[in-house]
Amino acid sequence: MAVGAFAAGRATAAEGEPSTAARDAFAFRGEHQAGITTPAQDRLHFAAFDVTTGSRAQLVALLKAWTVAAERMTRGLPAGEVGPTGGDALLPPDDTGEAIGLPASGLTITFGFGPTLFRDDHGRDRFGIADRQPAALRTLPHFPGDALDPAASYGDLCVQACADDPQVAVHAIRNLARIGFGTVAVRWSQLGFGRTSTTSTSQSTPRNLFGFKDGTANVKAEEPADLAEHVWVGRGDDPRAGWLAGGSYLVTRRMNMTIEVWDRQPLGDQEGFIGRTKDTGAPLSGGTELTEPDFSMSGSDGPVIPRDSHVRVVHPDFNGGARMLRRGYNFVDGSDPLGGLNAGLFFIAFVRDPDTHFVPIQLKMAKVDALMEYLKVTGSALFAVPPGIGPGEHVGQALFS
Amino acid sequence: MAVGAFAAGRATAAEGEPSTAARDAFAFRGEHQAGITTPAQDRLHFAAFDVTTGSRAQLVALLKAWTVAAERMTRGLPAGEVGPTGGDALLPPDDTGEAIGLPASGLTITFGFGPTLFRDDHGRDRFGIADRQPAALRTLPHFPGDALDPAASYGDLCVQACADDPQVAVHAIRNLARIGFGTVAVRWSQLGFGRTSTTSTSQSTPRNLFGFKDGTANVKAEEPADLAEHVWVGRGDDPRAGWLAGGSYLVTRRMNMTIEVWDRQPLGDQEGFIGRTKDTGAPLSGGTELTEPDFSMSGSDGPVIPRDSHVRVVHPDFNGGARMLRRGYNFVDGSDPLGGLNAGLFFIAFVRDPDTHFVPIQLKMAKVDALMEYLKVTGSALFAVPPGIGPGEHVGQALFS
Repeated sequence: MAVGAFAAGRATAAEGEPSTAARDAFAFRGEHQAGITTPAQDRLHFAAFDVTTGSRAQLVALLKAWTVAAERMTRGLPAGEVGPTGGDALLPPDDTGEAIGLPASGLTITFGFGPTLFRDDHGRDRFGIADRQPAALRTLPHFPGDALDPAASYGDLCVQACADDPQVAVHAIRNLARIGFGTVAVRWSQLGFGRTSTTSTSQSTPRNLFGFKDGTANVKAEEPADLAEHVWVGRGDDPRAGWLAGGSYLVTRRMNMTIEVWDRQPLGDQEGFIGRTKDTGAPLSGGTELTEPDFSMSGSDGPVIPRDSHVRVVHPDFNGGARMLRRGYNFVDGSDPLGGLNAGLFFIAFVRDPDTHFVPIQLKMAKVDALMEYLKVTGSALFAVPPGIGPGEHVGQALFS
Repeated sequence: MAVGAFAAGRATAAEGEPSTAARDAFAFRGEHQAGITTPAQDRLHFAAFDVTTGSRAQLVALLKAWTVAAERMTRGLPAGEVGPTGGDALLPPDDTGEAIGLPASGLTITFGFGPTLFRDDHGRDRFGIADRQPAALRTLPHFPGDALDPAASYGDLCVQACADDPQVAVHAIRNLARIGFGTVAVRWSQLGFGRTSTTSTSQSTPRNLFGFKDGTANVKAEEPADLAEHVWVGRGDDPRAGWLAGGSYLVTRRMNMTIEVWDRQPLGDQEGFIGRTKDTGAPLSGGTELTEPDFSMSGSDGPVIPRDSHVRVVHPDFNGGARMLRRGYNFVDGSDPLGGLNAGLFFIAFVRDPDTHFVPIQLKMAKVDALMEYLKVTGSALFAVPPGIGPGEHVGQALFS
């Protein structure tokens, strides 16, 4: 199976249907899970779950049930065979109904396993899989400036649902939570209303709530060598975790922006913090959005691209060549008690190894990045994302077999 | 000027541009404010503000500045003339930039005045307009089952921003809040990800998070006689508040749904609570979605449409003929501490008089509606929505002149 063969693979649309973006359906099975290199959809509903049972059999049964429901929903079908309105009026429906009549809308559902699924707080093996815990799958360290809400961090399992229609993404998470009743409970969930990343060269670069283009230098679906080097876990990466080869690590960081303070900063300062122009997104050293930054170019007062600018701090040239596949979303969760918008970037990144591709960069960013003055990280989580599954397999089969 | 002439009036699209829904722009000025009978857009950002100044002049200056910015943004322009990237690099931009490159996206911005704008908690005149306070503009009474969060209720001013792109709606509220810094502060705000109402016969009926079609029997733009009777404040309605003629009252109710409990109810019970089928939305007495319910039809065990069903409890036939123009949105604000989705319906209704068209119906609903077992009202507010403004006028001009 060729690398990426399924990553952007589209299911066949019904004959005669107009082939618009809203009707896109992405294959659920494949070498890698969908929702990573899939062209980033517009909307997100992300949920972290805690497992509430001690039974391995119950947990595996849930993963099987989730597999069936997720595959159905990504095809635009109801979560269950009976559907929201069929069957016995004396029974609850096996789909909740709010997506009746809506197409697949590009829905992808991506599953991940958190460190606490393998071992509890006392280091005890919870489900007989502790010896398969990847070495890099540990609770992320505390970073300077972290103000984490434990109720919005961590989790035994995660599900990322992305779609071009938010009702479809919400419907997916809700039905998986419904199916999991008694086995798992939602620990936290997050809606994202607008994508901030491009994961394909076919997409234009969107803007985050700082008003800047975001994700310009992302690893993209069309770069298989970079994906293999920076995103997919390699076959020999971790002898304990062969089941993770072809998968990835998923980092989430809920980055609240101090929007109101940011909005009072002069345009020149904003551009200095980012290292790019607000208009076209070109590096301050010139060119267009896609021009490589020239960090050596001098201005009247030090480098044109400041040393503490975001683009320089996180650039691969200063981080051992490490790149990430970012897939974050803008969020607004109402207002905080002081009247500021409770808003920012729900950062999502997929990396081959968090110890080399995320932790050092985040640590550096937390210490020296000028942007950090306008960010407060309120949620944080790390999950191991298994590879895709083949016909007849279920999510997590390689881990639990 | 004919009633409704501007209600669905569209600004001319740029020549040669494809005339897709995403590029629609609605006129900001007109007989009525846009965002009421305008075909309900897909996404919402609603904000309530408290006035933090004691100065009438400052408040009026803000309403003038808001008028300019709102009209610009509904045309797809930046909030200010300089724009997000023009002007002096030493000054903060007069637009925050996240909507650069996005079209008007059907944006409407609708302003309202709360009871506390007229009088403070001690009954004192705050801005010299107490004698113009409409008699019906009072804090809504406590209804049985209300579990209001004061921090998510009430407000001196409100702004409803609706658009087909959530980034455009968020951009509008954020820039109005930015412009209001020092004069007003956001008290609460609410994102809605999916419309639950049709306000035009050109729209199909969407579904709420109970999975049912919602808003079937809404007052619609194409019903001018019903709008005049049920939605627009008449010229002689309130001698103290002539400035409100041609306006309306806006009620918001943040109705949390106990999603997880609802999902465990048998289909037949769910349909009995609503009084309609989940599939087509037809009344349980038969026909299609648009068939009038037959409340007299008998089943084996009482009426086919139960007496405590939602459709019967709120039907005009049992409420003195009163109808509302509903314009609510589905919301999901993450999860609650118990692992349930913090989700439901952000109910918005426009009515001619809350004392006849909302309070009695809500009171009855709170007491007898079977649905109430699955609803918890956590936010509540009432605003007077002035009529539209003509050329050269500003929002609130008739009230403050």
